[in-house]
Amino acid sequence: MKFMIQKDYLVQSVQDVMKAVSSRTTIPILTGIKLVVNEEGVTLTGSDSDVSIESFIPSEDEGKEIVEIISTGSVVLPARFFSEIVKKLPKETVEVEVQNHFSTMIRSGKAEFNLNGLDAEEYPHLPQIEEENVFKIPNDLLKNMIRQTVFAVSTSETRPILTGVNWKVDGKELTCVATDSHRLALRKATIQSENDSAYNVVIPGKSLSELSKILDDSNELVDIVITENQVLFKTKHLLFFSRLLDGNYPDTSRLIPNESKTDVIVNVKEFLQSIDRASLLAREGRNNVVKLSTLSDGVIEISSNSPEIGKVIEEVQSDSIEGEELKISFSAKYMLDALKALEGSMIKINFTGAMRPFVIKTVEDDSMLQLILPVRTY
Amino acid sequence: MKFMIQKDYLVQSVQDVMKAVSSRTTIPILTGIKLVVNEEGVTLTGSDSDVSIESFIPSEDEGKEIVEIISTGSVVLPARFFSEIVKKLPKETVEVEVQNHFSTMIRSGKAEFNLNGLDAEEYPHLPQIEEENVFKIPNDLLKNMIRQTVFAVSTSETRPILTGVNWKVDGKELTCVATDSHRLALRKATIQSENDSAYNVVIPGKSLSELSKILDDSNELVDIVITENQVLFKTKHLLFFSRLLDGNYPDTSRLIPNESKTDVIVNVKEFLQSIDRASLLAREGRNNVVKLSTLSDGVIEISSNSPEIGKVIEEVQSDSIEGEELKISFSAKYMLDALKALEGSMIKINFTGAMRPFVIKTVEDDSMLQLILPVRTY
Repeated sequence: MKFMIQKDYLVQSVQDVMKAVSSRTTIPILTGIKLVVNEEGVTLTGSDSDVSIESFIPSEDEGKEIVEIISTGSVVLPARFFSEIVKKLPKETVEVEVQNHFSTMIRSGKAEFNLNGLDAEEYPHLPQIEEENVFKIPNDLLKNMIRQTVFAVSTSETRPILTGVNWKVDGKELTCVATDSHRLALRKATIQSENDSAYNVVIPGKSLSELSKILDDSNELVDIVITENQVLFKTKHLLFFSRLLDGNYPDTSRLIPNESKTDVIVNVKEFLQSIDRASLLAREGRNNVVKLSTLSDGVIEISSNSPEIGKVIEEVQSDSIEGEELKISFSAKYMLDALKALEGSMIKINFTGAMRPFVIKTVEDDSMLQLILPVRTY
Repeated sequence: MKFMIQKDYLVQSVQDVMKAVSSRTTIPILTGIKLVVNEEGVTLTGSDSDVSIESFIPSEDEGKEIVEIISTGSVVLPARFFSEIVKKLPKETVEVEVQNHFSTMIRSGKAEFNLNGLDAEEYPHLPQIEEENVFKIPNDLLKNMIRQTVFAVSTSETRPILTGVNWKVDGKELTCVATDSHRLALRKATIQSENDSAYNVVIPGKSLSELSKILDDSNELVDIVITENQVLFKTKHLLFFSRLLDGNYPDTSRLIPNESKTDVIVNVKEFLQSIDRASLLAREGRNNVVKLSTLSDGVIEISSNSPEIGKVIEEVQSDSIEGEELKISFSAKYMLDALKALEGSMIKINFTGAMRPFVIKTVEDDSMLQLILPVRTY
């Protein structure tokens, strides 16, 4: 195996597949990156066995030569060292050559590295996925859907299924739901697909977070394939595989109240900043709890009290308050997370009493929803 | 105590004095910031008893009203909360008022905080320093002198005196020296003073690092006063006090060789990048050791070998190599630190054999010097 490559392409590709490489793995060869060279180009693979990422560097890109392939072959190189080395190479061109016993020479300008490689035949095979039922979502939308739900997954392994995001496909509609049983985030979108399939799977939150770091902000389409125990995301030169979580996701639809007793419409930025200030003192307590009370003339009062440190009280002018008077307490962190996830400038909050979950949406858009359970404070 | 203040000035001042506040202190009141209001303005103080910082906000700055003083007085407020609160206040003006039992109201727009304060009479007094012998250094020069020496102090408490930087004043010359007994950094500069005094003190490295974060890059003069156990740095609105370290600093002058056997002149950027690359593999070993060999025609070879991972070898073209051939090994980290501390584009390295300390200077400037002890590698 021997090739010359444009450094920028190699650096980008290594950086992408590194997202799947973990230094804490029980399978030693997975601390490496697999390189496979064939006539078409160079394929890099990184994996922690939950997530696998494959990046392809074509020998030509838009008529420009990226890789000059001198001989084909394969090798596994220590990922951390290889990625740091390529970043720091002095020249724009890099030569890579496997020599005796998988020892691999990496040369750029007058700098010459030799890394001890491993036999690529020892590297685990990626899942084989038949691309029968493909549906498509634009990069930027997919990234947003992840951002708006993944923060709400559970970080506790008590109920492992809640560490994932529930993806349900029904015809042309995809619904993503995450909950840690104290709050819930939901986002719907229309997908592009040729046949109307139905899926109900749970994708690990960690996998989605890593995926969203790799996606760009373009509106190019990502191909998505779901199988029994794997999901594959496919962009132009990248394959991203994640295992699915085993088990049934709880039915979350009955959690979301249909009626409401108090409806508030408020500017999201003003409301968020006031919750943020109140949380400065609330953090000291165990629960990071702030209190919201409706006053007259559309005024909301946000307050928090930490006996040892002090207290804070602030009035926010809402656009409208309709329905019953309300005093309710909730986690400032959950509220801040929810508000940051929503887009748009105005939100409506539908409360169903001080002890019932409440729902936050933007006034413009019904496709996203945040739900928070209040906290008892008496 | 009651005043209205421009938020920006308060935020900046709080941020400056916070540099001295530690959350791990055995004196509870030092987790607070002291505020004193008199007719001239507001004085803030933070201290961890090693370092104390006093920042003064005048009621007027260049004809603009900064503070409107309604009544004088003093209070100590919890530093962490107070600093986070002022940063997040909604409006440009802040009202601060001490009410019953040092409870302090902080109001901006419709946000109102109440913090539990403490009696400022309980706050330790700052050292009293008579400003008899003042010498002066511009902000930017002082900052550079700290940057070029402080990284070389010892981080181990085995010899506490080496955790400080030795400042020697002799007439109009200030010499700063730091060493951890494996490497040494030295910087000289001319000071401005009215009488020729002589000092030989040791300032804690940590204090100097904090000071350099507060100094701006202007060439305005900083007043420096040294007493038996304290040093005071004084800028326009800021007093920075640090205790001095007890004990005698070792005589470092005899460590610096006067003769040399091999002299190399090389571009600092190329040399630094090549050491940086070699250190990628060297880090894996215990000592982070790289090897330098002189070849013919002014070529230097930099290499490193980590049997488990691989090896690296690189040639750097020097401007000139004079004297004996040389093979020497040293810590890549110490070399990188030294090269980053030096200014200018070309450096000269004077070696006195493979087992003797060597000296690095810029070709342009004799006022700074870095010394490194080699490592035995056979």
